[in-house]
Amino acid sequence: MPDWPRGDAPSRVANIPTPAIVVDVAAMERNIQRMARFFASGPCRLRPHFKAHKTPEIARRQLAGGSCTGLTCATVSEAELVAEFCGDVLIANEPVGPGKGSRVAELARRANVTAAVDSVKGLEELDAAALKAGTRIGVLVDVNVGQNRCGVAPGDAAVRLAQQVLSARGTVLRGVMGYEGHVVGIPDRTDRDGRARRAMTDLAATARAIRDAGLPCEVVSAGGTGTYDITGRIEGITEVQAGSYVLMDSDYGRLDVPFEQAFWVLGTVISRPTPTRCVADCGHKATTKDHGHPLVRNVDGAEVTALNDEHATIGVPSDCRLDVGDRIYLRPSHTDPTINLHDVLYAIDGERVVDIWPIAARGYPEHRHG
Amino acid sequence: MPDWPRGDAPSRVANIPTPAIVVDVAAMERNIQRMARFFASGPCRLRPHFKAHKTPEIARRQLAGGSCTGLTCATVSEAELVAEFCGDVLIANEPVGPGKGSRVAELARRANVTAAVDSVKGLEELDAAALKAGTRIGVLVDVNVGQNRCGVAPGDAAVRLAQQVLSARGTVLRGVMGYEGHVVGIPDRTDRDGRARRAMTDLAATARAIRDAGLPCEVVSAGGTGTYDITGRIEGITEVQAGSYVLMDSDYGRLDVPFEQAFWVLGTVISRPTPTRCVADCGHKATTKDHGHPLVRNVDGAEVTALNDEHATIGVPSDCRLDVGDRIYLRPSHTDPTINLHDVLYAIDGERVVDIWPIAARGYPEHRHG
Repeated sequence: MPDWPRGDAPSRVANIPTPAIVVDVAAMERNIQRMARFFASGPCRLRPHFKAHKTPEIARRQLAGGSCTGLTCATVSEAELVAEFCGDVLIANEPVGPGKGSRVAELARRANVTAAVDSVKGLEELDAAALKAGTRIGVLVDVNVGQNRCGVAPGDAAVRLAQQVLSARGTVLRGVMGYEGHVVGIPDRTDRDGRARRAMTDLAATARAIRDAGLPCEVVSAGGTGTYDITGRIEGITEVQAGSYVLMDSDYGRLDVPFEQAFWVLGTVISRPTPTRCVADCGHKATTKDHGHPLVRNVDGAEVTALNDEHATIGVPSDCRLDVGDRIYLRPSHTDPTINLHDVLYAIDGERVVDIWPIAARGYPEHRHG
Repeated sequence: MPDWPRGDAPSRVANIPTPAIVVDVAAMERNIQRMARFFASGPCRLRPHFKAHKTPEIARRQLAGGSCTGLTCATVSEAELVAEFCGDVLIANEPVGPGKGSRVAELARRANVTAAVDSVKGLEELDAAALKAGTRIGVLVDVNVGQNRCGVAPGDAAVRLAQQVLSARGTVLRGVMGYEGHVVGIPDRTDRDGRARRAMTDLAATARAIRDAGLPCEVVSAGGTGTYDITGRIEGITEVQAGSYVLMDSDYGRLDVPFEQAFWVLGTVISRPTPTRCVADCGHKATTKDHGHPLVRNVDGAEVTALNDEHATIGVPSDCRLDVGDRIYLRPSHTDPTINLHDVLYAIDGERVVDIWPIAARGYPEHRHG
C-alpha cells in the first residue's frame, strides 16, 4: 500500500473518500484471462489499448495474461510511460506537433516503437526526428476503413504512402492499421459482423496490395472490444487493439461480449430532499456522460436523471430507504474518459482495499512540472 | 516560469505541446474588472466560484480585483487549497462521507469556513466533527429555489433546519443559499430575468422567515454568471457565486453577458484526409462535450463534426488551406469540466507564454499520494 497524503490509506471500501473509482480485481482478471484465451490459438494476437485505463499495473497484468504482441497507446505521453515496462509499443495515432517527433524518436532508442502515419507531412516529421536522433521509427500506414476520421483511402493511396515510408531513411515500414470505430458499438451482432468484415476486407486487401508492390507489410492492426472476435478471426489481421474489455462500461455492456463490469464510480448520498429523489457526490467530473448517464448498481429501480459537475441526481422508488451518508455504485457509460478524470484506482476484493493503483498517464503528463 | 519536465518551458505559443489550454491574460483581467465594477457599489458582493478553474493564480487575481467577500468552492479538496490564500471560504455543497466532516473542521481552525446543509444527518456530521476538533463550522441552510437538486423547501422546512443548526454546539448559523441553476443558462433575457426573480423571491422570503423566527441570517448566497446582474440587484441577496465569467465558454457566450472568451483549447492538425475534413489532436479528453461541441476560432467556416477521446474531426470549406501541423484554437462549450481535464494553464500575451499556472485542485486531490 503506498504512502497516503493524510493519515492511513483506506483499507476498507467504507473508508474511501468519494467520489472515487473501485476496481474488482477478480472480475478484471477474469476479463484478462477470457481475452487471452481467445487469442491463445493465434495466428492473430492481442495488443491491449492502454488509453482505456492509463494504469501501468493493469497493463502489466494484461501482458502477464499472455497472447499479447505488446501494447497500444493513443498519445506519446502514454507511450513514454508504457515503454518503461513494455518493449513493443504501438502509437495507433498520428504524432504531429511540437516535440512529438523527437519524443517518439527518443523512445525508439530504447523500445520497439511504431507510430501511425497518414500524410507526407506526418511522415516527414517522424523521419526528420529519427535521423536527428540517430534511430529509426516503425510506421504503420493508417487506412480509413469507414470511420471517416484519420487514414488514407484503402488501395492505391495506401500503397503510395507505404512506398514513401519505405524510402525514408528514418522510418521502417511495418504494415498497416485501420480502426473500424464506426462498427465496434453496433449492438446487433449480425449487423456488426457484416460491417466489420467489409471494413477488414478493405484493410486486408490493402495489405496484400502493398505486398504485391514488393513492400513489406508484416503488421495488420485493427479491432476493438466490440469486434475482437470478428476482426480477430479474419485472415490477414495480425493483431487486435481492444481496450475496454478489461474493465468494461454500460455502453459495451449492451453488446454480446463475454466480459464483466469490473469497475465502478463510488459515491456518497449527500442529499435526500424528497422520497423519490436522492443526490450523490459523483457528477460528470467523476463519471462522464458522453455515452449517456451511468447506471446505478446497488439500488433497485434507481436511475440517474441528471448529471452535473459535482452531483448525480437519482430518481428512486418512493419506498427506497437510501439515506444521507449511504454509498452509491455507478456503472460508467464510457470507460476511457471516466478513468481519465481520476488519479488512482482502488483495487478491491469485496469490501477490502487490496491496493491503490496510480493512473499514471492520466491527462497529458508532458505539461506537468515540478 | 516554473521548472519543466524535459528541457525548457515553452516561451511561445508555437512551442506548446498539444492539446493544451491557453489563457489570454488581458481578456481574463478585463472580465475580472468588469465583474468587480458591477459589485463595487454594493450592497451585494461577489464570491467567485473556484470550481470553474481550480487555479490558485486566477483566484488570487479575482480577490485582488475587489468587491469579493471570499471564494466559493464545490468540494472539500478545493476548500483546502483555497484556505491557503483566502480567509473566507464557502463550500456551496453538502460535505458528507468518510473524512469530509473532519477535514472541514480542520479547515475551520485556520479560516472562516462555511458549508451548506440540507439534512439533519449532514448537520450531525459537521457538528460532531467540529466538536471533536474543538472548533465551529459556519453553516448555510441550502434551499431548493427550483433547480430540484439539493436543498430543503423554502419557508418552514428551512426555518426548522436553521433552528437545528443554531442549536448544535459545533455549528454557527450564518444564513441561507439557493442556486438558481435551472435559470442561469436561459438565453432569453426577459425569461431568465423573470424566473431568476421568482427563485430569489423564495430565497429572500425564507431568509426573512428565519429572521422573523428570531434566528440570525446574515448571508443570503445565490447566483451565477447568467444571473449575476439580476440576482445581484435583488434586495436581500448578499453575495453572488459566479464562476464562469472569468474565462467564459460558448454556452455562456450565447447569453447577453459582457464577458469575453479568455481561454482556448489549443490543438494541432494531425490528419487532412480530404479537402473538407481535418482532424486535430484535441478530443473530449481535452475539451468536454457535455454542453455540445466546441467552436473553432481560427478557421472560417470550420465546424467540429465529431469529438472522440483524442480526436476532433472538423468539417472545413473545400478551399481551406489548413494543413497537417497547423494549429487549431477551440472555444470550449463548458469551462468547468474542460479545465478539470488539464494540469496547467498556459498564460499568454499574444504569441508569448508569460507564465504557466498549475490547476492545483484538478480532480479529487485527496486521492493523490506520494
